[in-house]
Amino acid sequence: MFDSDLDLHTSLCRPGAGGRMYALASELYPICRSITGAGVRQSLDLLERRIPLTRTETPSGTQVLDWTVPLEWSIADAYIKNADGERVVDFRQNNLHVLNYSAPVRARMPLDQLKPHIFTLPEQPDLIPYRTSYYEERWGFCMSQKALDALPDGQYEAVVDSTLAPGSLTYGEHLHEGESADEVLLTAHICHPSLANDNCAGLALLAELAAAMAPLKTRYSYRFLFAPGTIGAITWLQRNQANVGRIKHGLVLSCVGDGGGPTYKRTRRGDALIDRAMTHVLKHAFSEPNVMDFFPYGYDERQYNSPGFMLDVGLFQRSQFATFPQYHTSADNLDFIGAEHLQSSLEAVSGAIAVLELDRRFINTAPYGEPQLGRRGLYSAIGGDKASYDQNMAMLWILNLSDGAHSLLDIAERANTPFALIARAAGRMAQKGLLTPA
Amino acid sequence: MFDSDLDLHTSLCRPGAGGRMYALASELYPICRSITGAGVRQSLDLLERRIPLTRTETPSGTQVLDWTVPLEWSIADAYIKNADGERVVDFRQNNLHVLNYSAPVRARMPLDQLKPHIFTLPEQPDLIPYRTSYYEERWGFCMSQKALDALPDGQYEAVVDSTLAPGSLTYGEHLHEGESADEVLLTAHICHPSLANDNCAGLALLAELAAAMAPLKTRYSYRFLFAPGTIGAITWLQRNQANVGRIKHGLVLSCVGDGGGPTYKRTRRGDALIDRAMTHVLKHAFSEPNVMDFFPYGYDERQYNSPGFMLDVGLFQRSQFATFPQYHTSADNLDFIGAEHLQSSLEAVSGAIAVLELDRRFINTAPYGEPQLGRRGLYSAIGGDKASYDQNMAMLWILNLSDGAHSLLDIAERANTPFALIARAAGRMAQKGLLTPA
Amino acid sequence: MFDSDLDLHTSLCRPGAGGRMYALASELYPICRSITGAGVRQSLDLLERRIPLTRTETPSGTQVLDWTVPLEWSIADAYIKNADGERVVDFRQNNLHVLNYSAPVRARMPLDQLKPHIFTLPEQPDLIPYRTSYYEERWGFCMSQKALDALPDGQYEAVVDSTLAPGSLTYGEHLHEGESADEVLLTAHICHPSLANDNCAGLALLAELAAAMAPLKTRYSYRFLFAPGTIGAITWLQRNQANVGRIKHGLVLSCVGDGGGPTYKRTRRGDALIDRAMTHVLKHAFSEPNVMDFFPYGYDERQYNSPGFMLDVGLFQRSQFATFPQYHTSADNLDFIGAEHLQSSLEAVSGAIAVLELDRRFINTAPYGEPQLGRRGLYSAIGGDKASYDQNMAMLWILNLSDGAHSLLDIAERANTPFALIARAAGRMAQKGLLTPA
Repeated sequence: MFDSDLDLHTSLCRPGAGGRMYALASELYPICRSITGAGVRQSLDLLERRIPLTRTETPSGTQVLDWTVPLEWSIADAYIKNADGERVVDFRQNNLHVLNYSAPVRARMPLDQLKPHIFTLPEQPDLIPYRTSYYEERWGFCMSQKALDALPDGQYEAVVDSTLAPGSLTYGEHLHEGESADEVLLTAHICHPSLANDNCAGLALLAELAAAMAPLKTRYSYRFLFAPGTIGAITWLQRNQANVGRIKHGLVLSCVGDGGGPTYKRTRRGDALIDRAMTHVLKHAFSEPNVMDFFPYGYDERQYNSPGFMLDVGLFQRSQFATFPQYHTSADNLDFIGAEHLQSSLEAVSGAIAVLELDRRFINTAPYGEPQLGRRGLYSAIGGDKASYDQNMAMLWILNLSDGAHSLLDIAERANTPFALIARAAGRMAQKGLLTPA
Repeated sequence: MFDSDLDLHTSLCRPGAGGRMYALASELYPICRSITGAGVRQSLDLLERRIPLTRTETPSGTQVLDWTVPLEWSIADAYIKNADGERVVDFRQNNLHVLNYSAPVRARMPLDQLKPHIFTLPEQPDLIPYRTSYYEERWGFCMSQKALDALPDGQYEAVVDSTLAPGSLTYGEHLHEGESADEVLLTAHICHPSLANDNCAGLALLAELAAAMAPLKTRYSYRFLFAPGTIGAITWLQRNQANVGRIKHGLVLSCVGDGGGPTYKRTRRGDALIDRAMTHVLKHAFSEPNVMDFFPYGYDERQYNSPGFMLDVGLFQRSQFATFPQYHTSADNLDFIGAEHLQSSLEAVSGAIAVLELDRRFINTAPYGEPQLGRRGLYSAIGGDKASYDQNMAMLWILNLSDGAHSLLDIAERANTPFALIARAAGRMAQKGLLTPA
Repeated sequence: MFDSDLDLHTSLCRPGAGGRMYALASELYPICRSITGAGVRQSLDLLERRIPLTRTETPSGTQVLDWTVPLEWSIADAYIKNADGERVVDFRQNNLHVLNYSAPVRARMPLDQLKPHIFTLPEQPDLIPYRTSYYEERWGFCMSQKALDALPDGQYEAVVDSTLAPGSLTYGEHLHEGESADEVLLTAHICHPSLANDNCAGLALLAELAAAMAPLKTRYSYRFLFAPGTIGAITWLQRNQANVGRIKHGLVLSCVGDGGGPTYKRTRRGDALIDRAMTHVLKHAFSEPNVMDFFPYGYDERQYNSPGFMLDVGLFQRSQFATFPQYHTSADNLDFIGAEHLQSSLEAVSGAIAVLELDRRFINTAPYGEPQLGRRGLYSAIGGDKASYDQNMAMLWILNLSDGAHSLLDIAERANTPFALIARAAGRMAQKGLLTPA
């Protein structure tokens, strides 16, 4: 049934969504997440206040595709103290100060020996970098170049009070069941510590969207997946390998809270429906969207688009990762994201979902010449009036192209008209009997 | 038989054609045409002085596709008189003054009550607009904003001395029979009153072309159709529904008398032979032709390209309708069109007809390496001479591509060379036995 | 076997190649070549000092495809003497002074009668043109416009001491045998007299390349053909008609010694592997390569791409023929070409050969998600490090696209990365077992 009154886009973008997403991102921001450990679980706790989640724990050492689930990382504290016992680097002030997944250490040494364990950004001397060492065991700290330069020579105490021990990898998911078992996968990574845009913003957007969708009847089922980057997606793919064929379309969300872009990276296939839907929606909503071809680097679209799976999963961002100066630094904080940007990102994703839900083919039931729209109350009756042009074009395009070979999105693309306008006009014409499902 | 001497283009563009077309357009201009009524028949009378016509009358009330043939409109006079009995708006001065297809009226009323029945163009205050009301019964007048502003308050007498009564819808056609029953449809609308470019120009061009073609032997049959817009084309399609498959190519002509453009709007298919022929001819004849994709608005290409018919009919214009300031106003008069523009429009259409007539595939009979053209008197014998390049390229292209898969138009397109030059070179080589029909 | 260590490109571009090619071109330059005669044989003698050649002599009068092998031209001397017996035009000073293939003459006549036999370049008054008259028997001289203008009226003696007599047409070839009998044809014309770029440069490059290739094991066999333009290629095609199907790829080389371009003209097919290889290599080696579609004029690619043969043979040049002012004049001398340009031309051709040799399809043996490259020592272990991007992209592209449908060149094109980088990365991954031949 094609329900012309279903304004899905509006239903998914509820009043106050921007503020709610910003608030949730703010709650998620302070948590020290990593690919395993308590930070992921605390973050899922926060998300679960908005939507029910199913959690999956996979033990350390489990073989997942070509990888092995690593040890679980727990961190209680980390600091560098000077000779006076003052903390000159303090994990409690900013969790970026510790090399993420750092091995434990407790040692005194002169500054010269300590320096190889300290990461800075010499070209952005005020910022703390975000660094990780997941698959090579090492310890270390991150700090601003300025703060490092201010340290006098002398003895320092370096402490990372962490453990790397058998435990498990955690991910959470929420399934919105639709009419069909075919799924749309919407996912964001939950492994970065205090980085607001990358990816507290993405987590918050998905939670808001899932909550908004909950009362709605949809055509597709929607799977919202919150998983650590790379190893989390790989673990999920391993555990769901038999059923991934259900995923017909998908989006990875990251960096959706800043005012840049928007950026859409296509699937490996390049012309999947999700590619067309996102491109169409962004083109009509933003002045200069940056739509780029797939490349095998970035977020977990890499895994979903690997040749063994070939799932049609694209990547939606505002500013493109690794191109904005705040990327992977302490400047990716709550000032960098905004409720209004989260809102417009939500609207873009909702617009694409509306295309997935409503796109279909119709047959023009009066295909010989144009049907007389005026007689049906669908057309302005004064001919020769220049103003009637815009108002009738959507109907004329639908009638002309509804031969069973063109979907509503095909028509919207060829007419260079927003899909929503085409879908509403198709609804009116279907009510008048001028269209019938193909 | 491929006759290399058949210069079809020249035969179709006879000396004095521009002047003759302008004269015919001038005769057609004063007539008050509408979608039905005496104006159409008087116009066909004028056309019939140039070419034989078959007329078809279809009674009011006849069901034609999704439409019904309307009542016939007859108009004797129309005016607005002021309190002194002076005509301040007078149909006899310009037939645009009456709302086309206006219902009859005879009433006195103050200016305030009259104004809702008066159409003007506030942004073009000197011009009378052309307005119609075909499918909603109303009465009205059109006048310049300046003239309306000059009317003092007071009582006026509004008279439209018209009738809307059962009659018939009229169209005329002329069939030039060629070797094949396959047809090329050439059509222009015959329903607009005193608008010179839209479409006295198109009617005059088709009459001249049909007269020029009469003595020629052609490959295709050519159907010249003079019909009221929309309802006329729909009526013709209804009556010829069983045979429209004979129409292999077609052109709608409108606004072919002004100095703008040229504009060619492709068929819905977009790569039909008529699209390629018109694009090729315009590209080589004009510096900046405007070739645009099909859209389902405009003239009767809308009906021919509807999904039930899918006939390959394009639209040729000089300035594009609804984009020039004279469009649908009293400024679309005999000063707006010119004999030289009608001439170059005729040449463009004739060039496309030459492509339809002469395009075919040949086989190079000496396909291994290049044949020695010099031995056959086809090549400049001095090698190393820069000037020989241009003169021999057409032959080399034809030899290289005449493998049975490429037509002369394919070759002309790839060589970026006028079709006429390619066709003549092919004729010479066929005479020498270097080419044989594919 | 895919040998990742085979750096074919480097092996083909040996140290000192530029200087050696320039020296050989300098030796070839003074010889008076034509389409037949001693000049071709002397040139082959010089080439044979570098590489073994097989020569083929085809008698005058032999029917070759649509042509006939012409008489052999021998020239001993040619001059114009003034009334004082001084040589004012002297073949011994520059062999361009004689119309190439000129019939013999020995006559006294006034300047007025002589002038129709003298060719000049009025717009380049200091230069001697290169002119030929192969297929129309005539005699003549070429000289600079300035020198002609300086001749006083009076009696002159015109002598062309040539013969046109039955003999033969000569070409030479060198076959490098590879693993496969499938051949790559590399050819240059050997019929132009003292023109350095057109084509002493091409002959020298092919000789250097053939010598460098001699010790190498290759996948394809390589045929180096030195033949007179047009009639030489046609004669070769006639004699090898039964076996031309072995030629899978080919390049014509001409004008490869100047600093312009580079220019690559595609095969008639337009998307042959040689087209893609040359386009790819030139794109990554030069800032603005000029890659153009096939057109049926130029060098012997015309013959190889004729519809009867349809061999995938492209044309590689630096400056495009007939577009540089030195073309076919005495200014195309040894100052116009340079060792460094010959070197970069050799590198381009060698790069394309490396593509032909090494391009193949692999299958990713760990296609589900990304394999863990770090564990295999293939990946930088510090995540979040911006610098790791460039270094790992080649591997990620290969893994993502190695599904059996994409070759290494496909991958290099899509990744916009030099083929050599992709081929080396594929070699490393094949060693680690991550790739297997498709």
